[in-house]
Amino acid sequence: LENIYCSIITIGDELLIGQTIDTNSAWIAQQLNPIGVQVKRRVAVGDNKEDIINALNEEQKHAKIILITGGLGPTNDDLTKPILCDYFGSTLVMNEAVLQHVTSFFERRKRPMLAINNNQALVPNNCEVLFNEVGTAPGLLFEKDDTLIIALPGVPFEMQYLVSTHVLSKISKKYRRPTFIHRTLITAGEGESFVANRLIDFERTLPENIKLAYLPKLGMLKLRLTGTEISETDIEQHFSELKNILANIFVADQDIELEEQIGILLKEKNKTLSVAESCTGGNIAAKITSIKGSSLYFKGGIVPYSIESKQNLLNVNEHTIESTTVVSEATALEMAQNCLQKFNTDYAIAITGYLEKNDHENQIWIALANKNFYTAKMITVPYDREKNTVLTVNSALNLLRLFILENP
Amino acid sequence: LENIYCSIITIGDELLIGQTIDTNSAWIAQQLNPIGVQVKRRVAVGDNKEDIINALNEEQKHAKIILITGGLGPTNDDLTKPILCDYFGSTLVMNEAVLQHVTSFFERRKRPMLAINNNQALVPNNCEVLFNEVGTAPGLLFEKDDTLIIALPGVPFEMQYLVSTHVLSKISKKYRRPTFIHRTLITAGEGESFVANRLIDFERTLPENIKLAYLPKLGMLKLRLTGTEISETDIEQHFSELKNILANIFVADQDIELEEQIGILLKEKNKTLSVAESCTGGNIAAKITSIKGSSLYFKGGIVPYSIESKQNLLNVNEHTIESTTVVSEATALEMAQNCLQKFNTDYAIAITGYLEKNDHENQIWIALANKNFYTAKMITVPYDREKNTVLTVNSALNLLRLFILENP
Repeated sequence: LENIYCSIITIGDELLIGQTIDTNSAWIAQQLNPIGVQVKRRVAVGDNKEDIINALNEEQKHAKIILITGGLGPTNDDLTKPILCDYFGSTLVMNEAVLQHVTSFFERRKRPMLAINNNQALVPNNCEVLFNEVGTAPGLLFEKDDTLIIALPGVPFEMQYLVSTHVLSKISKKYRRPTFIHRTLITAGEGESFVANRLIDFERTLPENIKLAYLPKLGMLKLRLTGTEISETDIEQHFSELKNILANIFVADQDIELEEQIGILLKEKNKTLSVAESCTGGNIAAKITSIKGSSLYFKGGIVPYSIESKQNLLNVNEHTIESTTVVSEATALEMAQNCLQKFNTDYAIAITGYLEKNDHENQIWIALANKNFYTAKMITVPYDREKNTVLTVNSALNLLRLFILENP
Repeated sequence: LENIYCSIITIGDELLIGQTIDTNSAWIAQQLNPIGVQVKRRVAVGDNKEDIINALNEEQKHAKIILITGGLGPTNDDLTKPILCDYFGSTLVMNEAVLQHVTSFFERRKRPMLAINNNQALVPNNCEVLFNEVGTAPGLLFEKDDTLIIALPGVPFEMQYLVSTHVLSKISKKYRRPTFIHRTLITAGEGESFVANRLIDFERTLPENIKLAYLPKLGMLKLRLTGTEISETDIEQHFSELKNILANIFVADQDIELEEQIGILLKEKNKTLSVAESCTGGNIAAKITSIKGSSLYFKGGIVPYSIESKQNLLNVNEHTIESTTVVSEATALEMAQNCLQKFNTDYAIAITGYLEKNDHENQIWIALANKNFYTAKMITVPYDREKNTVLTVNSALNLLRLFILENP
């Protein structure tokens, strides 16, 4: 089976001056992949006729399916519709169904409709109109022999609606495609090159239709197997092997973040958590609470950023701080134990350390406690303030995950 | 003077299957813009030789500067270096300075170095090596007549380091570019279309070589004037006018973040701050502590995520919560006042609210206190959990900034 390729063209000056980060392309790729369509290229161009036509011409050399997002609105800087009309020699015709929809769209929102909004119902006479239930600009689908050129609005939820309800089924009907399966393994605590070194033999034995990719993050590494035209059992076998080799640094066999895993663990066990974080300044609590429903297991946190607040709010012993300093195993352990008590939770994690270059290495102490047990670990962080924060948060969340697993 | 265009090629399968969102391109565009280089196109291709070479060939038709990110690591799926070698007929040579750096990089981290890491010091003999102080893969700069082709690692902070320390100065030396002057005004509290409406006359009087750009963020709006080939005094005059028109929503006349402004204010006045944040879950403390030196004025925070912790750690009166609920003016005010006391600070801010869609609108109460005065404001947030968090944090930081200014 031949691979079916797609190119995504995103249109808008805001993408080229760094004002907007393109999240549409990633979403589209996630939808196309499971139906066996590979995104071959993604191209962003500005609101400029020549650039848009160039992109249209070029991308057809690379892919059968061209998805265009952006520039379908009603104002003067929305160029996609007139350019496609030109490109396909279309005449604009009034589409009564779209006009009725646009009119009622404004009525329902009790907003006056401007003349300009009527234009949204003018559509090229030689395309298929993809009805946009959730917005005013319809999608436009042009079919040219084996090629599909589909223009979609840039507003994420409108684009998503049109892809889900129209585009995927259209593609599925038009093309026969190979199947892809992805499996992602998350590891922590070992660098990319070390892991690669351990996987030399594994990579050598991989069949041609399975590829391994390394996706490093600070303190973590994702490994992705992609199988083409392969059975679930076949890829599962290689994925199990990968998990076995890396068992000692295993974090997860799904592409989910640490804070989500921690949430799942705590909900399963019906346990609660609190946090005392000094140098990470609220970032661990922020990660934990980024998960919907985290109030079920997260009771709260303290950010004792000053020595005074470590003593007054967390009751860390003055003597401990004086004799071991604020960045020490003893201080971290007291912070974790007192945090556990103050919030009356099943688990507590505490962090104290230096994020910025001192004469000595930047040390961070991470302590963990439950009612029966406590432990602490020191890590060193070599980067700048921002990266050291991310590295510390990732390391702390992984230690917390392990602590929960090992101390149920 | 001719415009200088840049194309950004990002390499990596993870960009095409929707696993990674490309934030590098936006960052690069933000750096190139002020030195007069326009990003013309952004292209993402997979880890595939043919696709990478196609992109290299095509982008040179559109731009003089080709920036490539990704695929420079030490593993087998990192194709950029071998492909560029092929493309430019290079021989790989061992670069002693890079080798020494890589070796000491591993030594400093007390981690054994693998044979594979030596490869990072193998560089094409016909390129300029951009020394990477913060990672192991150097950047590679190829110069071909009027064209620059520069390969950078995909890890954001390594890429950012190389762009800041090597790439911008190289571009500035090589090309004559029109001069651009940017002036940024930050406003808060009024939407883009309202502000645009107030600026109709202002925009009409702008000379052709000054452009106004609207850069909306959640709860904030940045306005950027860009003058091409213009004098400082000329653009200053228009910028002052802009400031006058928008005086009532003025936040800053420099592009600095709210948390940095708050830090500057507190240091100037030698005052201290503490935070009690429920629904924002640590994000405000995290912003405040993202500023180097914030320990001078930030004493700490509490994240009282449960009702129990609001009572036990912040001493919010049980009766207040029962009679007004946890999301109320009274609860927010008590949180702020008790936070001020607990941390013994000059200012305190407290936040309590709902971030996710309820039947009613999502209300957030933000309270501020110093020793003599307290006040609270309610805002409503209409988006999803993530966006609502950002909007609440931005709104809270701006209210805090105003409170400090008005209550010195």
